[in-house]
Amino acid sequence: MTLWGGRFEQPTADLLRQLGDSIGFDWQLYRQDIAGSIAYAGALAGAGVITPGERDALAGGLRQVRDEFDRGAFEFAPGDEDIHTAVERRLHEIVGPVAGKLHTGRSRNDQIATDTRLWALEAIAAAQAGIHDLAAALVDLAAPHTETLMPGFTHLQPAQPVSFAHWLMSHFWPLTRDHDRFADCARRTAVSPLGAGALAGNPYPIDRAALAKSLGFAAVAQNSLDAVADRDFVAEYLFDAALLGVHLSRFAEDVIIYTNPAFGWLRLGEPYTTGSSLMPQKRNPDSMEITRGKSARLIGHVTTLLAVLKGTPTSYDKDLQEDKEPLFDAAHTLRLLLPLMAGVVRSLEPNPARMRAALDPAMLATDLADYLVARGAPFRRAHELAGHAVRAAEARGVALDALTAADLRAISLEFGDDVTAVFDFDRSVAQRAAIGGAAPAAVRAQIEAAREWLAARGADSA
Amino acid sequence: MTLWGGRFEQPTADLLRQLGDSIGFDWQLYRQDIAGSIAYAGALAGAGVITPGERDALAGGLRQVRDEFDRGAFEFAPGDEDIHTAVERRLHEIVGPVAGKLHTGRSRNDQIATDTRLWALEAIAAAQAGIHDLAAALVDLAAPHTETLMPGFTHLQPAQPVSFAHWLMSHFWPLTRDHDRFADCARRTAVSPLGAGALAGNPYPIDRAALAKSLGFAAVAQNSLDAVADRDFVAEYLFDAALLGVHLSRFAEDVIIYTNPAFGWLRLGEPYTTGSSLMPQKRNPDSMEITRGKSARLIGHVTTLLAVLKGTPTSYDKDLQEDKEPLFDAAHTLRLLLPLMAGVVRSLEPNPARMRAALDPAMLATDLADYLVARGAPFRRAHELAGHAVRAAEARGVALDALTAADLRAISLEFGDDVTAVFDFDRSVAQRAAIGGAAPAAVRAQIEAAREWLAARGADSA
Amino acid sequence: MTLWGGRFEQPTADLLRQLGDSIGFDWQLYRQDIAGSIAYAGALAGAGVITPGERDALAGGLRQVRDEFDRGAFEFAPGDEDIHTAVERRLHEIVGPVAGKLHTGRSRNDQIATDTRLWALEAIAAAQAGIHDLAAALVDLAAPHTETLMPGFTHLQPAQPVSFAHWLMSHFWPLTRDHDRFADCARRTAVSPLGAGALAGNPYPIDRAALAKSLGFAAVAQNSLDAVADRDFVAEYLFDAALLGVHLSRFAEDVIIYTNPAFGWLRLGEPYTTGSSLMPQKRNPDSMEITRGKSARLIGHVTTLLAVLKGTPTSYDKDLQEDKEPLFDAAHTLRLLLPLMAGVVRSLEPNPARMRAALDPAMLATDLADYLVARGAPFRRAHELAGHAVRAAEARGVALDALTAADLRAISLEFGDDVTAVFDFDRSVAQRAAIGGAAPAAVRAQIEAAREWLAARGADSA
Amino acid sequence: MTLWGGRFEQPTADLLRQLGDSIGFDWQLYRQDIAGSIAYAGALAGAGVITPGERDALAGGLRQVRDEFDRGAFEFAPGDEDIHTAVERRLHEIVGPVAGKLHTGRSRNDQIATDTRLWALEAIAAAQAGIHDLAAALVDLAAPHTETLMPGFTHLQPAQPVSFAHWLMSHFWPLTRDHDRFADCARRTAVSPLGAGALAGNPYPIDRAALAKSLGFAAVAQNSLDAVADRDFVAEYLFDAALLGVHLSRFAEDVIIYTNPAFGWLRLGEPYTTGSSLMPQKRNPDSMEITRGKSARLIGHVTTLLAVLKGTPTSYDKDLQEDKEPLFDAAHTLRLLLPLMAGVVRSLEPNPARMRAALDPAMLATDLADYLVARGAPFRRAHELAGHAVRAAEARGVALDALTAADLRAISLEFGDDVTAVFDFDRSVAQRAAIGGAAPAAVRAQIEAAREWLAARGADSA
Repeated sequence: MTLWGGRFEQPTADLLRQLGDSIGFDWQLYRQDIAGSIAYAGALAGAGVITPGERDALAGGLRQVRDEFDRGAFEFAPGDEDIHTAVERRLHEIVGPVAGKLHTGRSRNDQIATDTRLWALEAIAAAQAGIHDLAAALVDLAAPHTETLMPGFTHLQPAQPVSFAHWLMSHFWPLTRDHDRFADCARRTAVSPLGAGALAGNPYPIDRAALAKSLGFAAVAQNSLDAVADRDFVAEYLFDAALLGVHLSRFAEDVIIYTNPAFGWLRLGEPYTTGSSLMPQKRNPDSMEITRGKSARLIGHVTTLLAVLKGTPTSYDKDLQEDKEPLFDAAHTLRLLLPLMAGVVRSLEPNPARMRAALDPAMLATDLADYLVARGAPFRRAHELAGHAVRAAEARGVALDALTAADLRAISLEFGDDVTAVFDFDRSVAQRAAIGGAAPAAVRAQIEAAREWLAARGADSA
Repeated sequence: MTLWGGRFEQPTADLLRQLGDSIGFDWQLYRQDIAGSIAYAGALAGAGVITPGERDALAGGLRQVRDEFDRGAFEFAPGDEDIHTAVERRLHEIVGPVAGKLHTGRSRNDQIATDTRLWALEAIAAAQAGIHDLAAALVDLAAPHTETLMPGFTHLQPAQPVSFAHWLMSHFWPLTRDHDRFADCARRTAVSPLGAGALAGNPYPIDRAALAKSLGFAAVAQNSLDAVADRDFVAEYLFDAALLGVHLSRFAEDVIIYTNPAFGWLRLGEPYTTGSSLMPQKRNPDSMEITRGKSARLIGHVTTLLAVLKGTPTSYDKDLQEDKEPLFDAAHTLRLLLPLMAGVVRSLEPNPARMRAALDPAMLATDLADYLVARGAPFRRAHELAGHAVRAAEARGVALDALTAADLRAISLEFGDDVTAVFDFDRSVAQRAAIGGAAPAAVRAQIEAAREWLAARGADSA
Repeated sequence: MTLWGGRFEQPTADLLRQLGDSIGFDWQLYRQDIAGSIAYAGALAGAGVITPGERDALAGGLRQVRDEFDRGAFEFAPGDEDIHTAVERRLHEIVGPVAGKLHTGRSRNDQIATDTRLWALEAIAAAQAGIHDLAAALVDLAAPHTETLMPGFTHLQPAQPVSFAHWLMSHFWPLTRDHDRFADCARRTAVSPLGAGALAGNPYPIDRAALAKSLGFAAVAQNSLDAVADRDFVAEYLFDAALLGVHLSRFAEDVIIYTNPAFGWLRLGEPYTTGSSLMPQKRNPDSMEITRGKSARLIGHVTTLLAVLKGTPTSYDKDLQEDKEPLFDAAHTLRLLLPLMAGVVRSLEPNPARMRAALDPAMLATDLADYLVARGAPFRRAHELAGHAVRAAEARGVALDALTAADLRAISLEFGDDVTAVFDFDRSVAQRAAIGGAAPAAVRAQIEAAREWLAARGADSA
Repeated sequence: MTLWGGRFEQPTADLLRQLGDSIGFDWQLYRQDIAGSIAYAGALAGAGVITPGERDALAGGLRQVRDEFDRGAFEFAPGDEDIHTAVERRLHEIVGPVAGKLHTGRSRNDQIATDTRLWALEAIAAAQAGIHDLAAALVDLAAPHTETLMPGFTHLQPAQPVSFAHWLMSHFWPLTRDHDRFADCARRTAVSPLGAGALAGNPYPIDRAALAKSLGFAAVAQNSLDAVADRDFVAEYLFDAALLGVHLSRFAEDVIIYTNPAFGWLRLGEPYTTGSSLMPQKRNPDSMEITRGKSARLIGHVTTLLAVLKGTPTSYDKDLQEDKEPLFDAAHTLRLLLPLMAGVVRSLEPNPARMRAALDPAMLATDLADYLVARGAPFRRAHELAGHAVRAAEARGVALDALTAADLRAISLEFGDDVTAVFDFDRSVAQRAAIGGAAPAAVRAQIEAAREWLAARGADSA
């Protein structure tokens, strides 16, 4: 039984059923679909289209269907091409012909848009909760390490010393932007299409505003054609997920490099690594590589949906059905990936000794230049003289801090006898004390700000 | 002259110069770069690093450089690998060695991030203004056409009658979402990285908050590593542009189809069409096809940047330079595409007679079902009987409204003698009066709401 | 039981299992995995690493495992993280400890690469067979319609008359390119990685060339690091699938437009359309819209894999596991989409009368220009004069062929009294007789060439 | 002057000109456009449409135009909307009205398709030459290093020892596949669309086959609608470029990691690095990061074009113009990137001592297992016991080779007294002697095969 067979004489091609039927994935919308139907029955009763008794019969039947799904007891029938058909078919079995009144003035076009938005709102909240927990884990790990120094890189080359805490926090702030973007997406998702009908609106005097409110929507779609065609919220969700994935991937990339024995700065908890079927000694950072790989998949999803949408003319087209699997897969991926990453962070064991051992005095060349600036040299000249010092040390095959004040004064008399005090990593870091800098005090302030951000967005206030 | 040659003995490979030098496109940042430098000179003076006199000399010199750019009089030199180098080189020629003090504590890493954000903020404002103007054009064209009926499509097949105004407005609301998304993007873009240095922060006591404010930023980046690495705002801009492009493309697709002579519903103004070098009669909707094609390009740009970012480890990497060309190209595309579309809309000539002639009584089959619902039939049964009526008309090779009440009663006695009153397109449309529906009254209310939206976001309040 | 637990003390995190275990999709490789293992047992025996008796025991056990899979009787166990583990675990249950010898010198890295290549070769052959059948359906439909005229479009605007056969054949030739591309992909896929070990090669004297041959490979991978890292063949398959999808989508786009009642040129067989849950009269071209939508998904897949691969360093990384789902999904999609399209083509009912009615004499303007060329005018001048004729007819509100010879001579005396003979659609088409042109004779020759192409690539010679 | 203005009364909108005019980039096609026109003039003469004298006049004029372009002396005029218009306008100035005969039977649709294919064939040859040179550089660097050992990684974790040569060669073979793919692409590109007209074919008796041959094409497009619509060859070029980019990016990723001081395995030649404007000691691998970034851009290009093509209906649509910039940019990128990489390879200085120092005896754990296999243990059991050995060494905090035979026999008596002979990196590598393995002999054979491949594809035979 389809919901539309009245005028058709030939059955749908089997291949079209296999490609077009969405029940294989949209059954996941059952709670949203049923909530929408219960609310819609209420609206029909409010408009006098059905009686209160019919409304109650429908609502009761729908709750029973939901219960069957919840218990895993729902049995699909051959004609159940999508979740709407499945629910209505079963409802009919339970409550009889009155089931046929539920779809009055409604179309699967406004129905699926409603279901998907309700589902997306939950997916957004879940993503935000996952982000929040991961962000908290980063802060917790960072807090005791504001004075644990490690090389800071640009171009993956040693640049200036920073702290382990500062590096960890550099992966915290992107997450706050992700959280913020998801909040914006939720605002645009919480707009009710229900009552838009197939495309032209609802001919019954239903109260769309009240209907929207009863489902938790904040607003009502203003144009019925747009209401059934709009998948912007899915595209935006997918982009937000992809950019979040990029952030997780960048973090993973750092961890993969820092756990290589040449670095040895970090050790992943064993539960987050795997071994090899051939090489008994292996301890592979699979969790990080999967994260890196999955972020590519999230990029693919947003590409897919944008290409789908670009190709469609006005209002609803069947192509739009291709929004569901990317959305479901992205949400599923984030539901696993975010707590995985939080677990990884909580399992990370830093090796402060290896970090500090990797500090090379050449990373203090900027400090050498700053020393000259403090004595009046324009920075450009100071930079050049510091470069000469680096080259001199390299030519001799020694570290930069092996140069004596005399060596430096041989380069330029602008260097004073006190210049070698510059060769102190802790002093160097401590000087970067402006907001956002690597200095322990600045990082402590940063962590404080982060904690405030977290507190303002508790798991439930997300 | 590069800004970094001190320790190098061999020149940069010519191919690396060609691939790595960004001056070919980042000269467009000159105003932002100079504004940032003037502000930074102020911050250095505030911190006592340079004197007020030096600050004024630097600011004066920088204004002269800007003026040279504005007048097209700036002459590039061979070593000008990027806009920062070009400006500083020229500044040095103008003000002498004091130019060498400007870069104290600053890196090209925080500098380029600052420049790009300032530029992006202008691009966002420009996009919003363009959206606003296009949206206003749609409303103006729609207003007189709330009773100009045309077939509404789903699956590009006739579904139910709607009005030309309703169809136009279905392309208005997506633009409001775009405008809103750009506003969110601006909020996240208006965060100052200046003072983050190369990666570890600024060792001088500059006041980052005041510096940010003086440049029009609303906030300060909290982590220096993140500050130089963060290109989220570009990715978000590119996504917002791509989704806007998708909306323009969907509109273009409709227009292309509706201007085909088989439809003849619309005529594009001649300035928005082109002819053929071979076929003298041609009048091609190039403006719409270009729009459709450009939207693919915008999708490619967001894919590019996400793939760039995904592949980078901590902090600044040279890969990030690949953010610029997609950003510039997307902004340039929107700067042309949005006013082009507004011009197209203002040139559109609808053909109401062709639109109405395309209305097929079969589009009233739902009304036939609703008629039965009003007489007590469950919608599902009503839908089925209406389907039989459609099939009966098809079998006889006549339009649905050629069926008499007797014909319909032969299908089911649930049809009454008054049933043929249903066969009235205007009546059908008028019934879709719930919020967002196709009824003239509802569309007038919709247009009213649209005008309020426009008024609340005047060109300058965007 | 994992294949690698020896040195581990803590269990794998549940989330990592959920994200990292591939058994949920790679069970589909069971036939390839078992074929590879049987062949590898043979190679081990050939190298004297195991005895012929052990080889036979392993092969017998593996055949039993395959049989269990074939019958749907295979039971997965909790530790079966991938198809390799599942098969080896079950093999051990069947043949005892000798199962532990199968993996000698082999790694899951060369094993999965081998399995995937064998699977991809079958997917390529299936795609080629599907393309062949669809291509044949197009030719069969085209053959009787070389004189069925319809407007040919550029820019979706009437350009010059062509035949229905010519239009159909324009969708045939892209498929031949797809077929050809898949053949090239097969050539690069048929390279054996087996024997590459985890990354460094196989320490036993196995004969890789013979092993490859026994599995149907045409060549042997020359570098073990590359052998386990190379997923080019998957990327190439995905691109070939995406471009094929684009071709199907373009065809679908045409069909969707031509089945709109404003055209009415084509009617889809009912089994390839669906109805509406709200609108009883609907007959939606779902099959075509799904095709259009799925092609976006295929684009997303190739984007995903390129982004995955771009982010990986040397040799095997876990990210590579993300190749499987796009490959499987793309192949599954093509396995359904290609026969669906063939069914659609076989169900298509053209309406020659509507096609001819859509021919507008203005489409003969080029013929008018060619007429002048034949009388000595340079084409540019001829084009301009024909343009004036079009404008004259438009100004009078009549069709181009309503202009008399006198009317035309009023524009230019270069028009002769015989000029109106030009206003003949059949004559116009017949003139385009050069290879590949729209003339019936040329299209018949084209169809002949197509039939030769098909014959040279029978279903089994694909 | 446009080529199509005859019937138009209003000028093209300035914005449409800015967006639609292609002269800003397609001037690069001038040589191809002129070659095509000279050949077409020949075909027109062959068909008797123009006289031999006219043909010679046209050809002479066209050569003069080409010469002006070559010398940089060509002056564009305001109406030159594309290269075809510019050339024809100038031709008219030179040879007078006979210029107007050149376009007889030809359209810009078949013309641009022809130009682009000719240009793409050159771009393919250039890419192949660049690949060949880079591949040769890799082989040259590899040859003396078959016994220079370094850790081979999987999951970026030490796996088994390999040689520097073996690692280099793992980046050689992907290039051979790229070369092969470009060759396939060339085969499909070398098909002539000239003579397809605007869409329906050419009404003059031109010899398309001879015309194709005179331009160096290998075949003739069989369907005129397809001939003007087909951009598969561009999509294929872009995919081939993107996958090549991915290979270069993976190599770059390795180099970036191996040049970090924690590794110190490689040193990039100074011309391929850059410094920092702030940090005097920096030596950044910009060349490698740019390569990594550009590969993302190439991915974006293929996404763009697939999305463009997917959205177009039958035959030529203006959207197709969006093929040009991605093609030109991709080809330009490869023209710089490939020789840059070859230069990098030729500048690479390996540090064999650092490589060998990074070898960890735990990488011999597989050899320990193989030792047990040689003594009769099934590999699975051997793997487990070797895992215990690794754990025992870890527990004691010593390297694996610090375990004595007695220690190992305490784990299992299956270890013999000679077991410690296993702890020898050179011996380990030497055992991987099957084809494609890391053994010096196998790598020498590999290099030999590579040299044969190179010789068979000399710069000019590409």
